[in-house]
Amino acid sequence: MIAFGLGIASRNSALDIIETFYPLPAVNPDEDFARELSNLCELRFGDSGFRSLDAEGLEVFFAAARDAFQHEQESVAARLRDSERPILLCLSHGQSPPTSAPEAFLKLHLLSHRLARPHEQNLDGIFSVLHNLAWTSRGPVSLQDLPNLLLEARKQGETLSVHSVDKFPKMTDYVVPSGVRLADSARIRLGAYVGEGTTVMHEGFINFNAGTEGQAMIEGRISAGVMVGENSDLGGSSSTMGTLSGGGTEIVSVGRNCLIGANAGIGMSLADGCIVEAGLYLTAGAVVRELDGEGNLVRTCKASELSGLAHRLFRRNSLSGAIECLPRKAHVTLNEELHAHN
Amino acid sequence: MIAFGLGIASRNSALDIIETFYPLPAVNPDEDFARELSNLCELRFGDSGFRSLDAEGLEVFFAAARDAFQHEQESVAARLRDSERPILLCLSHGQSPPTSAPEAFLKLHLLSHRLARPHEQNLDGIFSVLHNLAWTSRGPVSLQDLPNLLLEARKQGETLSVHSVDKFPKMTDYVVPSGVRLADSARIRLGAYVGEGTTVMHEGFINFNAGTEGQAMIEGRISAGVMVGENSDLGGSSSTMGTLSGGGTEIVSVGRNCLIGANAGIGMSLADGCIVEAGLYLTAGAVVRELDGEGNLVRTCKASELSGLAHRLFRRNSLSGAIECLPRKAHVTLNEELHAHN
Amino acid sequence: MIAFGLGIASRNSALDIIETFYPLPAVNPDEDFARELSNLCELRFGDSGFRSLDAEGLEVFFAAARDAFQHEQESVAARLRDSERPILLCLSHGQSPPTSAPEAFLKLHLLSHRLARPHEQNLDGIFSVLHNLAWTSRGPVSLQDLPNLLLEARKQGETLSVHSVDKFPKMTDYVVPSGVRLADSARIRLGAYVGEGTTVMHEGFINFNAGTEGQAMIEGRISAGVMVGENSDLGGSSSTMGTLSGGGTEIVSVGRNCLIGANAGIGMSLADGCIVEAGLYLTAGAVVRELDGEGNLVRTCKASELSGLAHRLFRRNSLSGAIECLPRKAHVTLNEELHAHN
Repeated sequence: MIAFGLGIASRNSALDIIETFYPLPAVNPDEDFARELSNLCELRFGDSGFRSLDAEGLEVFFAAARDAFQHEQESVAARLRDSERPILLCLSHGQSPPTSAPEAFLKLHLLSHRLARPHEQNLDGIFSVLHNLAWTSRGPVSLQDLPNLLLEARKQGETLSVHSVDKFPKMTDYVVPSGVRLADSARIRLGAYVGEGTTVMHEGFINFNAGTEGQAMIEGRISAGVMVGENSDLGGSSSTMGTLSGGGTEIVSVGRNCLIGANAGIGMSLADGCIVEAGLYLTAGAVVRELDGEGNLVRTCKASELSGLAHRLFRRNSLSGAIECLPRKAHVTLNEELHAHN
Repeated sequence: MIAFGLGIASRNSALDIIETFYPLPAVNPDEDFARELSNLCELRFGDSGFRSLDAEGLEVFFAAARDAFQHEQESVAARLRDSERPILLCLSHGQSPPTSAPEAFLKLHLLSHRLARPHEQNLDGIFSVLHNLAWTSRGPVSLQDLPNLLLEARKQGETLSVHSVDKFPKMTDYVVPSGVRLADSARIRLGAYVGEGTTVMHEGFINFNAGTEGQAMIEGRISAGVMVGENSDLGGSSSTMGTLSGGGTEIVSVGRNCLIGANAGIGMSLADGCIVEAGLYLTAGAVVRELDGEGNLVRTCKASELSGLAHRLFRRNSLSGAIECLPRKAHVTLNEELHAHN
Repeated sequence: MIAFGLGIASRNSALDIIETFYPLPAVNPDEDFARELSNLCELRFGDSGFRSLDAEGLEVFFAAARDAFQHEQESVAARLRDSERPILLCLSHGQSPPTSAPEAFLKLHLLSHRLARPHEQNLDGIFSVLHNLAWTSRGPVSLQDLPNLLLEARKQGETLSVHSVDKFPKMTDYVVPSGVRLADSARIRLGAYVGEGTTVMHEGFINFNAGTEGQAMIEGRISAGVMVGENSDLGGSSSTMGTLSGGGTEIVSVGRNCLIGANAGIGMSLADGCIVEAGLYLTAGAVVRELDGEGNLVRTCKASELSGLAHRLFRRNSLSGAIECLPRKAHVTLNEELHAHN
């Protein structure tokens, strides 16, 4: 996959580019257009990189887009002619790791625009190319510039509010994908892949390179790398164990038509149609009693060995305290009124 | 119940009214005043609806309020004479479902102003009359208008931040009821009923048509439809199971002087003076051992069958793993310093 | 400990000082400088208090700072000469309780600047000297002034958003300490002590007078008074029981190299190198089976009696349902890429 984006960049007081907004990122341009873009960036064809565009460079892009019949790209270029902020063009190869902040932002945009799925791009080392910034009521600010701005704002009777100090911004300041509700967007990072028809409630969270396949109700936490299948429901404060901290190494996924109950969690993948009872944390190494439809013991094994089984209910027996896995009966239906009007 | 409100509306670029702010909603006006308001809205007496008011219409409202000795209404009308945004008058009948966004907003205002209690109004179909909006640093924006605004703001070096994409705004941008603390108001929807003396901490959440009766410490989630009694405490990340998703149908409530521990949860109602131990999720169908004061087994039954019993402690026996219900002894007291200064 | 700060104050419409920002608070000035500051505040040496400074007072401070070779203080004083908001000087004695809002804000700044550690200052009665304010997109507003501002903003087509109604603001509007990432700063109160190298993820929370010693990954809740040791990891939605509500009285702490799993919790302190399994809430009174390295029962006791033991794993046996404490083997390592680039 080759991606490109015409972006509006922010610089700090030291003139470093600290972030980039791409109004219309795109993937896999036809080869002639791709070669034009590589030339414009002074890159070898197929390489990743970016170049700041002056007025002339922007016109070259405009002409190339027109020649390639990319009318939306052409239109964005035209609108950026009077930009007060620096414009850049970035090319990114899906298989190579990001080598600059503008490229990392492009890769994250692709995910949130649903142009690349989680795990489809190489994101190795992304923490080291992104700047840790203060995301303020006046936009992103370098941490070295912040104390001065705070003092100046205060003494003039103005307000400068710092919403986050992080390498990743919130998605919605860059991308709002179609057909979603995102109740508290501070909890959804740029780079989240939010499927059409997904509702993320106030307690929901989606990290970058993670998300949902389609219609879903997310009131729990989707850790980096985790994908949740269509028509699944993550209850309030439910947890999917990630690999970024805490020592886990397996990449967790959730199948279709699953329900992870409120305050429950998984350290292993779930196949389609599984339910984890509210309040049960199912770590990969938990020893589980597998039961058949009549409640007879089939075997005792680690939870991770059951992660391929569909249509199972995981619960803690409320009399014996044992974790059990049994065939499920009831069918989960997401509330239709809630989902019909995204 | 009949309610009315003089409101300030927002329109999108297609001129639809997308939301309405009512500075002083009111219920049950005397009949003469109510008839005047119905006439002004061109409605039959008793019907719900709204009408945009021009300058003349606003004067008719002003005169009617004066004639009815509604001096606060009169004063609000006077202040709205120089409004730069459209003014409307909305009437809403408690028993009829909302038929427009302005009426839905009026019903939600009534809840947060404590003029209507949860379940007192018909809210059927509210999801279908509310618009899914981007709630931004520049106010509510229609999703179709958003990409253009994001691009224009960026290229001018300005910031447009999208805090939420949802049908319901946060309550505090419309109503801050008396005597409350709301640590992170992004987690309290318009339509929450927050009792006098309630503190909602950062982890607390209150959905619309739900809330607290009076003094309460809320660090957990109050789902749509759930009411929490006076002097109760919901611990951090505790959960009350709602009916909007996950398949539940019973409406849960919490009595007075209850404590739901941190990371605990209930799928059934609690009577007065009950404690659910931290970390225990008590689903309605969990089989529970009911014990007497000496620890002898009374019976084994579903948790939902115990929801009428007051002064009970629910816990999971930490040696046997069984969920138990026993008479409680200790008395829960909310921290006085925390609550004395709301 | 004696602390001082030159601050920029906000007043409400009744001219009360409702909050104060201190760009450069400091502790333990040399005695001559300290006496000058006491004189300037018209206080007896060693007493706490504050005084509003006029232009002349500011010059006295400037000269005193210069004489004491406090060049950063001198520089701040110089920058405040053209402040449009009132300037004050506040002195605070560590052992005396705060007696005013400006002094309470100074004490909270000291914590977040890491100039005072949690429990090092007397904070008795802090709830009664702080004002409950609306923290808005235009800065802090008294609650009595709010309805008027909301109405005026709306009718002019502007937006006034209320982010919080609380006595404590969010830390990052006042202090951003070095070497941290704070994904959603609405969840970190002024007065939090965030150690160098700490990452607080979106689900993390830190109350005032609480925090982390150094490098840490915080995705859970650090209650008021709780300290977390270096290199520890609090999983998503994990809970540390505080003393402000819910009836607890013991002050909880977490040692170094600990891991509290996702959705887990503690009502007791943890020694170094302990793990609490994901989903397990370990209340102080829970009866626990202590096992040796071979899995043999050592004794059965309350969890609180085990809080001095290092390198232990606490888990609920997934077959028997009993809570167990056993020597741990695996070593927790925080993800290096996540932490190397704070």
